[in-house]
Amino acid sequence: MAREEATSSEMRHDWLADRWVIIAPQRTERPQDFERRTATINDNASCPFCLGHEDQTPAAVACYYSHRRTATDDWNVRVVPNKFPAVQAVLNGSTQFTLEHAVSQGHGNGSNSVNLFRRRDLCGGHEVIVESPLHLQSITQLDRESTSLVFQAYRDRLAYWLNDCELAYAVVFKNVGQDAGASLFHTHSQLIATDVLPTDIGRVAHRMQLFAEKESQCLFCRMLEDELEQQCRVVEETADFVAFCPFASRLPSMITVLPKAHQSAFELLDQDSLEQLSWLTHRLVRRIEKCFPDAAYNFVIHTAPRRVELCQHKLAAAFHWRLELFPRLTTVAGFEWGSDCYINPIAPEVAADALRRVGV
Amino acid sequence: MAREEATSSEMRHDWLADRWVIIAPQRTERPQDFERRTATINDNASCPFCLGHEDQTPAAVACYYSHRRTATDDWNVRVVPNKFPAVQAVLNGSTQFTLEHAVSQGHGNGSNSVNLFRRRDLCGGHEVIVESPLHLQSITQLDRESTSLVFQAYRDRLAYWLNDCELAYAVVFKNVGQDAGASLFHTHSQLIATDVLPTDIGRVAHRMQLFAEKESQCLFCRMLEDELEQQCRVVEETADFVAFCPFASRLPSMITVLPKAHQSAFELLDQDSLEQLSWLTHRLVRRIEKCFPDAAYNFVIHTAPRRVELCQHKLAAAFHWRLELFPRLTTVAGFEWGSDCYINPIAPEVAADALRRVGV
Repeated sequence: MAREEATSSEMRHDWLADRWVIIAPQRTERPQDFERRTATINDNASCPFCLGHEDQTPAAVACYYSHRRTATDDWNVRVVPNKFPAVQAVLNGSTQFTLEHAVSQGHGNGSNSVNLFRRRDLCGGHEVIVESPLHLQSITQLDRESTSLVFQAYRDRLAYWLNDCELAYAVVFKNVGQDAGASLFHTHSQLIATDVLPTDIGRVAHRMQLFAEKESQCLFCRMLEDELEQQCRVVEETADFVAFCPFASRLPSMITVLPKAHQSAFELLDQDSLEQLSWLTHRLVRRIEKCFPDAAYNFVIHTAPRRVELCQHKLAAAFHWRLELFPRLTTVAGFEWGSDCYINPIAPEVAADALRRVGV
Repeated sequence: MAREEATSSEMRHDWLADRWVIIAPQRTERPQDFERRTATINDNASCPFCLGHEDQTPAAVACYYSHRRTATDDWNVRVVPNKFPAVQAVLNGSTQFTLEHAVSQGHGNGSNSVNLFRRRDLCGGHEVIVESPLHLQSITQLDRESTSLVFQAYRDRLAYWLNDCELAYAVVFKNVGQDAGASLFHTHSQLIATDVLPTDIGRVAHRMQLFAEKESQCLFCRMLEDELEQQCRVVEETADFVAFCPFASRLPSMITVLPKAHQSAFELLDQDSLEQLSWLTHRLVRRIEKCFPDAAYNFVIHTAPRRVELCQHKLAAAFHWRLELFPRLTTVAGFEWGSDCYINPIAPEVAADALRRVGV
């Protein structure tokens, strides 16, 4: 076969995930038979998240109020159990988490033969953080105080599930737009907490620990130093945080936000840093919205799991929490499902440059 | 928090991937603000894959003909290099695959400190298998002979890249519909071959080897026995193949096809089995199309990678090739990106029952 015209594909290694990613800018030039589709959206008359429709959701477990509120029912942020939970609710706030459960995550049960049909219950919590009493779609439509209340809810609810309930794992995530997995329009986030540590989270925790042992330094503390020195992937820097497009991201224009000081648990953030982070995230989402109008996006807060020590990963201290924000510009296709190797058509340096330049 | 109404969520363990999956049927009852979108499709006047438009693609590397062909230019299946390849083309059919490359996939380079910004070239092939001279969208619109020619192309091209070119890895995949990552309407598949073994493929190969050592039996040979005994997840069985919905699939209504006799390399299939498999796949896609009209779908052929022995996995013999077929009914959302834990809203037994019942 003759050599095709040169392409600029390269592979980059994601040390944390131990995974190679293909950066292939030439892939954006492909012809497209399919036009971009627009979704039709319900009006707010039937929206279960709007003010006045509180009876359409389970009772709130927490509400947050603006200091300017005028009436007692004027909540700004409202946390409710998900009406269609992915996990079974924890009974009476206590968990059934036992060592046996953790061990059942391991690699078989010793002398007996492998069971290919292993099942177990999943206990935990699945909550919705409703971010506004109004029928808004984006967190960028909130003011500074309301945005900060949303992040306070994240912090409080993570602390509740991880510290009070002692669950193994909890994650906050946000799906905006159909391509990001949202089913409702009204601006909201979700939290899922489980008594099982997802295998991949255990793997990542193990890699962080491995790096710390090898290098006598936290992986993300090192990455921060390197990113600030190189600058080419940095999108924004504040007193306490750095936002950058990671070197080997699987998805185009992904942004990672790291606290500059080493901190394992997001839920330990102090009030000043929390407000700084919430407004930084607000700006980053605005950047995404300006660069990619109408694009769906997700963000995810990765905080240190508990109980990892039961799975032979002694890593609580080695973990460095992070927030990941990513527009959904590509589709996971057959190659990615087959190989778990992702093709990213926007080099992170190019992505960072575009995100930096846009005014917010 | 009070216990919510009981849900029927459960976790299931995928032994091969060592990953728990959440089966949550109640999630399908969620309200939806977003309407299903329909894509607009170009007409065939500008389609680069149609008969007569051969000059719009690179020159064919292989063509397949019906025994009924009348004119010399009446190809039925045509294989061309991808005009927008994700990988750099191999020079003169030779590869630069070296032990160094394999080692660079490992976990660092010994005494030196970890490099967080590792890059490398990616060499290999990226081909398109055009499955019909006509502007059809689905392989189910082909007759039996043409379908068989498509699978002959898969076999020949996998053999070319893995055996003749000695690349590390090759995968055949098919993207149909925008939600499955297709960019063109005209029925086609793709092949990507690389000189790097994707990390996850190495992991899976290692797990297959681990099972074989532990159980003195191939993982998929055991699974076949168990699935045929239980029957509840079997969709279809032929003389040489079994199609079933795997116990812990991440995506709803996924079907795995396994050869009954242990075989590592798809490309070693004999002609009789190849024809049986191609027509079985045709029927399975018809089942998907009838159960989920207009749904996008993918299929992927996982054949044994080469060179895995260089990565400390001695597994060529332990590998059992498979074909995976899956409609794209769910979206990978924030939770899945954050945890690598998937929520599958259709229990595989329910999926298999529906796929079995539909007449084809």
